Amino acid sequence: MFKIFYEDIDIGQTDSFGRYEVTRDEVIDFASKYDPQPFHLDDEFAKKTPFGGLCASGWHTCSMMMRMMVDNFKDKGLASLGSPGVDKIEWKKPVFPGDILRMESEIVAKRDSASRPTLGLIKSHYRIFNQDDAVVMAMHGNAMVAKRG
Amino acid sequence: MFKIFYEDIDIGQTDSFGRYEVTRDEVIDFASKYDPQPFHLDDEFAKKTPFGGLCASGWHTCSMMMRMMVDNFKDKGLASLGSPGVDKIEWKKPVFPGDILRMESEIVAKRDSASRPTLGLIKSHYRIFNQDDAVVMAMHGNAMVAKRG
Repeated sequence: MFKIFYEDIDIGQTDSFGRYEVTRDEVIDFASKYDPQPFHLDDEFAKKTPFGGLCASGWHTCSMMMRMMVDNFKDKGLASLGSPGVDKIEWKKPVFPGDILRMESEIVAKRDSASRPTLGLIKSHYRIFNQDDAVVMAMHGNAMVAKRG
Repeated sequence: MFKIFYEDIDIGQTDSFGRYEVTRDEVIDFASKYDPQPFHLDDEFAKKTPFGGLCASGWHTCSMMMRMMVDNFKDKGLASLGSPGVDKIEWKKPVFPGDILRMESEIVAKRDSASRPTLGLIKSHYRIFNQDDAVVMAMHGNAMVAKRG
């Protein structure tokens, strides 16, 4: 099932993937559970904030990003072993119900794991775009990827 | 309703707050929607990975953290206006069903917003602990906080 291993990944490689339709129900469901601030739940309140309207929690945007990334790993057969963390997240524009998100990625660094010879670490820069091709979020992420064999 | 504004926040201030019981149903529900990797969904698969058992998505841990933070803002009346992003996230240990999470925070920097005179920017260091007082996640976060008046 795995087709792409650490050795197959080159610095500078880019990818474009994903399509996620943001629904009002999901924005409110996520915010009710995890981020119950009024600009994620209340239209009238949100209109009076700099967001300009009810918008998704930044953590919801991260979660929708992750779904697009995992679907892409699976499509391509990437031997992903999880992540030790994230170097930076920027929430650049609000994500609104009705938006359609997509992603672009670029590999910016790779190195062998010092502690675990069976895997390598990949640094990537990710951008999430909305349907107007505006960047709504950018992330510098880290992934652990298995080596061949 | 707001009691704590930008002017009331001092560098070096610490806080300890939150209690979040991680349930198996919620771990699987979150992962099914946003991070359908087998170590978040399949007990047998997860036992054979370095995680050692079925564990929560890192984005789920971020989301549970956010819920503890928002409940704490509301309890204390912090005039929070959202966040422009995160400087760093470290997922240090797996979070398992049955874990009980809590948080500690420290204010590490503050500055007036250059573009918006009505608010200031706060940098904080957050740690999430499990019931064994092990740090499962650490984050350097940014918050926008309203000034008085």
